[in-house]
Amino acid sequence: MIIDVHAHYTQASPKLDAYRGRQISSQNQPKKGSLGISDDEIADALGGNLRQMKDRGIDRLMFSPRAGGMGHDFGSELISRYWSEVNNDLIGRVCKLFPEQFSPVGQLPQTPGVSPKNCLEEIDRCVHEWGFVGFNINPDVSGGAQPFTPSLGSEWWYPLWEKMVALDVPGMIHASSTLNPGLHMNGAHYVNWDTAAVVELCNSRVFDDFPKLKLIIPHGGGAIPFQWRRHSALHALEKRRPFEEMVKHLYFDAALYDQDSLELLVRRMGPDNVLYASEMFGTAKAVDPSTGRCYDDTVPMVKAIDWLSDADREKIFSGNARRLYSRAKL
Amino acid sequence: MIIDVHAHYTQASPKLDAYRGRQISSQNQPKKGSLGISDDEIADALGGNLRQMKDRGIDRLMFSPRAGGMGHDFGSELISRYWSEVNNDLIGRVCKLFPEQFSPVGQLPQTPGVSPKNCLEEIDRCVHEWGFVGFNINPDVSGGAQPFTPSLGSEWWYPLWEKMVALDVPGMIHASSTLNPGLHMNGAHYVNWDTAAVVELCNSRVFDDFPKLKLIIPHGGGAIPFQWRRHSALHALEKRRPFEEMVKHLYFDAALYDQDSLELLVRRMGPDNVLYASEMFGTAKAVDPSTGRCYDDTVPMVKAIDWLSDADREKIFSGNARRLYSRAKL
Repeated sequence: MIIDVHAHYTQASPKLDAYRGRQISSQNQPKKGSLGISDDEIADALGGNLRQMKDRGIDRLMFSPRAGGMGHDFGSELISRYWSEVNNDLIGRVCKLFPEQFSPVGQLPQTPGVSPKNCLEEIDRCVHEWGFVGFNINPDVSGGAQPFTPSLGSEWWYPLWEKMVALDVPGMIHASSTLNPGLHMNGAHYVNWDTAAVVELCNSRVFDDFPKLKLIIPHGGGAIPFQWRRHSALHALEKRRPFEEMVKHLYFDAALYDQDSLELLVRRMGPDNVLYASEMFGTAKAVDPSTGRCYDDTVPMVKAIDWLSDADREKIFSGNARRLYSRAKL
Repeated sequence: MIIDVHAHYTQASPKLDAYRGRQISSQNQPKKGSLGISDDEIADALGGNLRQMKDRGIDRLMFSPRAGGMGHDFGSELISRYWSEVNNDLIGRVCKLFPEQFSPVGQLPQTPGVSPKNCLEEIDRCVHEWGFVGFNINPDVSGGAQPFTPSLGSEWWYPLWEKMVALDVPGMIHASSTLNPGLHMNGAHYVNWDTAAVVELCNSRVFDDFPKLKLIIPHGGGAIPFQWRRHSALHALEKRRPFEEMVKHLYFDAALYDQDSLELLVRRMGPDNVLYASEMFGTAKAVDPSTGRCYDDTVPMVKAIDWLSDADREKIFSGNARRLYSRAKL
């Protein structure tokens, strides 16, 4: 069985973006409103996902709203709440229509300067009403502007960790859009926050206080596996517990697009802490002109790691995901 | 010959930080003032550098002010100018005292929201009065806050590139401190801006317009070598020229602290585009408890790349640096 733990709903009806567009002109008096997307429209838009899953032998997607679309920096707390509810309801509907292929992962109504306590009600709603199995957490709520978001290692986040542990849902740390013109969202901003998240969490008491917290760092961990001993050195310099020990509290997804980097990731983190992912459809959906294959066609890459046992490969493809996403009953 | 192209003056007299401290309480009427550091104090504080260079077989340091100390986000344009002049003068004095071991690399009086045109006079002064051979360029002048710094790919930076090309001085893209509490300066913020810089420059016309511009990305390029085909895929998706072609306009330093990552860097960028660096004394100066050796004792790592020819190894150790730092007459 192969599970892709990092798939965003990038093929949604334009009616979703139209809803978002209308939020701009009603910031003074936000209204919930509705999307007006039918079940048939949802099903039609997912044909590409289902075909590609079949072609590549991927059995299930952990399916969440488009990361760049979360846009927590925009508007008031109420705008963020309505936008999250609308997106999560849509994800919930997708997963009810295709329960064998998609498991629902939600976005949170995070808002700059507002405690993540404001997300707890939406987590409960998604889990209990729709059967959500995980959530994406934006570590840079304001998209880089002030008010800045407290470090992921700080107690500011604890109400969120408490709720996630209580419900046994994992979180993927995933930034959304940024206001900074010097940062390409998909090329730099996302992976930069992956790196930052690992550094802050490894330099904190979070896993002392929440030993059962399950956090996934996407995109192969950003720069972390490559800058590995930079972090070892900083931990030694700052007299913290060893980096190599702290980082094993985390899980990294395998959304990398070459063999060398994937193998480096698995060597660094070990097969118990890596989860298969291809970001379908995302960053790497283009065709590599040199091979004629899509960059994100990465199942063969995992199969090609010849020093990995079959049991370890199975952990990466699905075993670790089954363990983490306990509510998914896979 | 071995040249370390990435060494900051982290052992300066506390009188330097005391000068900085006084700037806080005279923001309304900044005064240039002086440091009051004698040549003997300078020489004494460099004993550690000279000993370590001898121990490790490093012949020369490209020596610049402490990166985190540049703090361009703090205070007015005049404060940044005085602070840069004081730091650059100190670097100039170090290099006059030890001309065989140190080559001067400067910081710029960058200021949030102010065009880099304000740096040109200081570049001329450093090159012509002190013999500076390169400069560090902060891609995130405001330390992450608003006003944000324009993308390195934008024409906002062109006056700086023009001056650097005219004087044939290379630049190292190196962030300074950040105001964002979620970003560890040395663990995340620096390497994040390395990644961002590469993405922006590779997605620009900068090297069409300045084919002779020489820019070095430190810390092994941040996440770039590891996320290599993420960038290939994004270039294909966005119909840009191939990433593998664009990135070869840049140089990456080898300030990485393990064999695997260093070899990945050299494989990706090729031996013509990598320059030896250890950040002496910086991030990785601690002793690795598992080996008893310093993390930044990396000359043996370059020697241990067994697939590299002697000629290529020499390029990494010094040949590429001689070529780039043409004013250093090495």
